[in-house]
Amino acid sequence: MPVNLKLPVAAELRPIAGVDIGVAEAGIRKASRRDILVLRLAEGASVAGVFTANRFCAAPVTVCREHLAAGEGIRAIVVNTGNANAGTGATGLANARATCEAVAARLGIGARQVLPFSTGVIMEQLPMDRLIPGVVAAASAGPATWLDAAQAIMTTDTQPKAASRMVELGGHPVTLTGISKGAGMIRPNMATMLGFIATDAKVSQHVLDAMVRRAADASFNAITVDGDTSTNDSFVVAASGRAAGPPVTGLHTPEGRALSQAITSLAIELAQAIVRDGEGATKFITISVEGGRDEAECRKAAYAIGHSPLVKTAFFASDPNLGRILCAVGYGGIDDLDQSRIDMYLDDVLVVQAGGRHPGYREEDGQRVMKRSEICVRVLLGRGTAKATIWTCDLSHDYVSINADYRS
Amino acid sequence: MPVNLKLPVAAELRPIAGVDIGVAEAGIRKASRRDILVLRLAEGASVAGVFTANRFCAAPVTVCREHLAAGEGIRAIVVNTGNANAGTGATGLANARATCEAVAARLGIGARQVLPFSTGVIMEQLPMDRLIPGVVAAASAGPATWLDAAQAIMTTDTQPKAASRMVELGGHPVTLTGISKGAGMIRPNMATMLGFIATDAKVSQHVLDAMVRRAADASFNAITVDGDTSTNDSFVVAASGRAAGPPVTGLHTPEGRALSQAITSLAIELAQAIVRDGEGATKFITISVEGGRDEAECRKAAYAIGHSPLVKTAFFASDPNLGRILCAVGYGGIDDLDQSRIDMYLDDVLVVQAGGRHPGYREEDGQRVMKRSEICVRVLLGRGTAKATIWTCDLSHDYVSINADYRS
Repeated sequence: MPVNLKLPVAAELRPIAGVDIGVAEAGIRKASRRDILVLRLAEGASVAGVFTANRFCAAPVTVCREHLAAGEGIRAIVVNTGNANAGTGATGLANARATCEAVAARLGIGARQVLPFSTGVIMEQLPMDRLIPGVVAAASAGPATWLDAAQAIMTTDTQPKAASRMVELGGHPVTLTGISKGAGMIRPNMATMLGFIATDAKVSQHVLDAMVRRAADASFNAITVDGDTSTNDSFVVAASGRAAGPPVTGLHTPEGRALSQAITSLAIELAQAIVRDGEGATKFITISVEGGRDEAECRKAAYAIGHSPLVKTAFFASDPNLGRILCAVGYGGIDDLDQSRIDMYLDDVLVVQAGGRHPGYREEDGQRVMKRSEICVRVLLGRGTAKATIWTCDLSHDYVSINADYRS
Repeated sequence: MPVNLKLPVAAELRPIAGVDIGVAEAGIRKASRRDILVLRLAEGASVAGVFTANRFCAAPVTVCREHLAAGEGIRAIVVNTGNANAGTGATGLANARATCEAVAARLGIGARQVLPFSTGVIMEQLPMDRLIPGVVAAASAGPATWLDAAQAIMTTDTQPKAASRMVELGGHPVTLTGISKGAGMIRPNMATMLGFIATDAKVSQHVLDAMVRRAADASFNAITVDGDTSTNDSFVVAASGRAAGPPVTGLHTPEGRALSQAITSLAIELAQAIVRDGEGATKFITISVEGGRDEAECRKAAYAIGHSPLVKTAFFASDPNLGRILCAVGYGGIDDLDQSRIDMYLDDVLVVQAGGRHPGYREEDGQRVMKRSEICVRVLLGRGTAKATIWTCDLSHDYVSINADYRS
């Protein structure tokens, strides 16, 4: 059961002018489910993306980087679920390229104008005999809705993830709609597998690049389910330029700030949706580490808490065994940390003061907070003014079940 | 159920001349169990220890460091289970000192000649009204066996951990007996909570210091259950000097090498026992990363594999979902890793060659290995000659149950 995650409603997801959606069934892993998505982008669209820092990156990630660098203008995005095309060597790379070629041939564009994405099981080759007819069908199909698109990229997700935003830029309305997927192998390091946002905004390439990096850092790069940085993480924003008004040419103009804020806010909602639907999640946990010397050390401490299986099982049990949080802060990589300066809150309850249990802390107050489905842990390091926030979920029996059974 | 871990037999654990054992019931957390251990050391014993790198180290760890640095000669070791005295601030520190004073008063030694250790729940104060009578009783009690000692320090351990070694130094027999405890919050970084080795060897202080560091690196510092570096990790070797023959005064003499080897080998057995009895463990996994540029990068990659919840749940399920291992290597922190040079074996089965699935690899061969209770993962990085080996266990439903219920 996802944690406080609303099922998206097709009618509330706004179409984006200049972006057409096609889905198809290729039977890659399961029969009778739509497992291929093709987004067709109008000529002149700006596309920017960030990709996994995993050195064992998947073949499609390598091809995406090449095709974005080629600068020929991206006209299509093709996604398959059921198979990640990672750990597949030279054959995997050839298969990713062949996928782009098939889509390109169908749409009458160049193969380097197609970005390929894959998600699913690692270290198996794509079933090209089924995949190619599938991507050709999806390239021709449509128009489908953004809800169809979100459904076509799910793996262990229990529900599709999608949301829309409207923003006015210089008096002209601009629309953004995004989708994401992911539930396990989630500790994005650049972005997560997979987040897509489309907008009809007109925006120049270098500005969109900067907006994507900024949005990724504040959203997908701030979530973790299990600490496993995926081979396929990708976050892409496509701007079709079909909205009225002049193009956005700077990050710091009023329009640039408004568009960047809308992209970031949508990315945060999509990233949090991944955590809310994290494998086996029963709690949504916000971890905020404040009072650090720099953001990097706050993030390190926050991730140490967010990755600790002991902390995560305590949340699952609603057990205020809060020493486990201190323990994680202690090994979180801040070498000169002074434990006697640390305070910790659980929601509004002061648990730790000056490195020890606060005299006024009562177990029943901790217990009361731990029973909530959304909990905020706030750690104050007492050594500076920097802060960082990440989002994670608990570790439950269902996480073990899901990952012990994933392939069967 | 621990994985292939023999229950120690009292008669096979050799007494150490110059080391007397006393245990007692203090009712710290549970009634009717012996939860206090005091080791009394003969005058002139050499004692060396390494302690957790967790910045939120427990009060007794701070006191141990002070007392070892004082150099007044350690004459007693006192351990309680049921409460870790960590995250307890100034009161916790005062309680650790008061514990040493009580033991010292009973034995007629100085308080700085006592090393205190605690294990159990974090962020609760020690119940001093029960602890003090308990440590006084244990300081007077005895003689108990090493099996009693091992039992008195258990927490979530399902069985006591103890072993002995005999070694000849210059024709004279020397005996070593060690005990350890720990099952969760195990990713030692200096040593684990708790390992003790006693020997009757005569050995000078600086040589023993070096031997302890060497043994810790090869044993306790090479295991992980859940990646949580404890607040209380401690590994201590006490050498009573009661054996016949001249003292060991160098690491590189034949006697120095023999003693160091015996300490290391015993420490490895005790460390592996912790993994075999890891919380919820059903598999004992050896992870060997070879062909790295230096040992540090091999260890990083090995720990990335050993900490991945996805890898660990695949082992639990006996599912050869081996792409998860590649994925962990990829995010393991080697920034310039070339995936196309990587090979991987599961026991004797070649799974990955040149970064992709080996053409001869058959799922049923992987399946056959995954069903074993002891499995070796060998990753060849293809970029150097360094290597590192660590030991870990799988992640099962029982891990979640144990840690969701630990305090209740």
